[in-house]
Amino acid sequence: MTTLLFHSDLDDFTTWKEAIERTAPSITVRSTQDAGALEAVTAALVWAPPPGLLRRFPNLKVVINLGAGADSLLRDPTIPPSLPIVRLTDRALIDTVADYVLLYALALHRRQPELAAAQRAQQWTFLPPTPTAMTRIGVMGLGAIGGETARRLAAQGFKVMGWARRPREMTGVECFHGLAPPDLFLTQSDILVNLLPATAQTENLIDSPLLGRLKPGAALINVGRGSAIVEADLLAALDMGHLRHAVLDVFRTEPLPDSHAFWTHPRITLTPHNAGLCHPELSAGFVADVIARSLGGEALPSCVDRIAGY
Amino acid sequence: MTTLLFHSDLDDFTTWKEAIERTAPSITVRSTQDAGALEAVTAALVWAPPPGLLRRFPNLKVVINLGAGADSLLRDPTIPPSLPIVRLTDRALIDTVADYVLLYALALHRRQPELAAAQRAQQWTFLPPTPTAMTRIGVMGLGAIGGETARRLAAQGFKVMGWARRPREMTGVECFHGLAPPDLFLTQSDILVNLLPATAQTENLIDSPLLGRLKPGAALINVGRGSAIVEADLLAALDMGHLRHAVLDVFRTEPLPDSHAFWTHPRITLTPHNAGLCHPELSAGFVADVIARSLGGEALPSCVDRIAGY
Repeated sequence: MTTLLFHSDLDDFTTWKEAIERTAPSITVRSTQDAGALEAVTAALVWAPPPGLLRRFPNLKVVINLGAGADSLLRDPTIPPSLPIVRLTDRALIDTVADYVLLYALALHRRQPELAAAQRAQQWTFLPPTPTAMTRIGVMGLGAIGGETARRLAAQGFKVMGWARRPREMTGVECFHGLAPPDLFLTQSDILVNLLPATAQTENLIDSPLLGRLKPGAALINVGRGSAIVEADLLAALDMGHLRHAVLDVFRTEPLPDSHAFWTHPRITLTPHNAGLCHPELSAGFVADVIARSLGGEALPSCVDRIAGY
Repeated sequence: MTTLLFHSDLDDFTTWKEAIERTAPSITVRSTQDAGALEAVTAALVWAPPPGLLRRFPNLKVVINLGAGADSLLRDPTIPPSLPIVRLTDRALIDTVADYVLLYALALHRRQPELAAAQRAQQWTFLPPTPTAMTRIGVMGLGAIGGETARRLAAQGFKVMGWARRPREMTGVECFHGLAPPDLFLTQSDILVNLLPATAQTENLIDSPLLGRLKPGAALINVGRGSAIVEADLLAALDMGHLRHAVLDVFRTEPLPDSHAFWTHPRITLTPHNAGLCHPELSAGFVADVIARSLGGEALPSCVDRIAGY
């Protein structure tokens, strides 16, 4: 028997507990509020736990991050660098994020923000629809989620470019690589999609110089992390009209503070970090396998690279 | 040489003229404002011309409708029943309408109207994303546009049902047929999509009894014709919350009158009949072929069936 600690403010404890215990009867899943004997906990399945929470469990052998971006764990100084962190990126997470980007890419392509403004002004303003092939989308980050997102956008007829640090090849997606997004990638993007993890390299990546290299009237979708955006620079680009619209799911501080300028900006559509979510039924087997490997001293899949920072 | 009369308030005359004359140099395209000798006009390419316009051309042999729904022509009593009306449904029209339905189906599935209301209220309200397989969409009308729309929704993982008058078979789409939409089709639809033409049979189809058979919390997308909806019944279903939201592109009177209740209803998203548009480059060959066949006395493709009314 082994005990798995579960902590998430967004995911349902009971559903996860039932799915994992059904899949692996030797695992007992307990919540932070009812953790039982701290020594019995050998694994943790968590999303954004309070800093310091995990140090309470002296026999913790592995932490599984309930999502793709493990930056909240990496920011917690009480988690030793030797403790393996495994990222959970299941089919439901990939698909729900790809759905989100497809939804807002189509909305921006079809000028839904302008159409909504016309409705509010009670004005019948015919905007002719254009083929998706007229819109070029640049996807930053081509991991499991970014790759599937780029493929799905291309399947809808959009022109799709992708940028990643390492070279990639994808059918129907023009791939760029390198340490910084190349000029050809930025200057051709009608819609820029950020799917990068929060690292030292991506911190403040989307600033005035980068935004200035986008086409006038380009749009932005951020489903990576809030730390990628210099907020004052984004607001300036929107206010001067260089950027047509921004769709934001992630923010430097979440929940977004009450007084934040993003809430009421007419060129910002914001959602409460709900682009993607893992699914208990799809992930229970993976979680059980990670725990078994950890207890057996075997190599772990999808481990966070502490040097790369994701 | 033959003269083609062009009339549309939405499509660009010069672009169409150039595309057609480049494809078929024996055709001269002229606008209503500069039609030249009325006797020389043997064909017309039109979208919603003013009633009575076409009777001015005594040698008219064929009318090509710049779109799928030819109801505006069928309502014009000055157009003789013997004059063939050809419907133009090119790849651009099919794709732009399918894009539109996919956009708003995703928006309704992801509760975008509720998320937009939360942003306006400056409330961080986490709504968990769900897989598209959790949403069942009923598509009314499985012609060229409805069929492609149903296919594309199914490709995104939605559960898709289709209803048409005649039996159909489509991979990944559960097809129903008959004179009226069957109970199983209506009671299972989370989102109902209307893509039916305006006919005597579809007039007032979407009334209180039909809306009452939908699930509580269902949503509606109307890209067929405004005449399909009993407006007071739709407003009642929205006001009592039985219907969660309606996305409307077509209306009984277009442009929608200034004082109309749809403009400001919090549960209505409306667009200015811009779901789809034909593309000159894609349609020029078809238009030239129809004119050649008409002059040669041959059978015409995509003719409106005056008995069926579409």
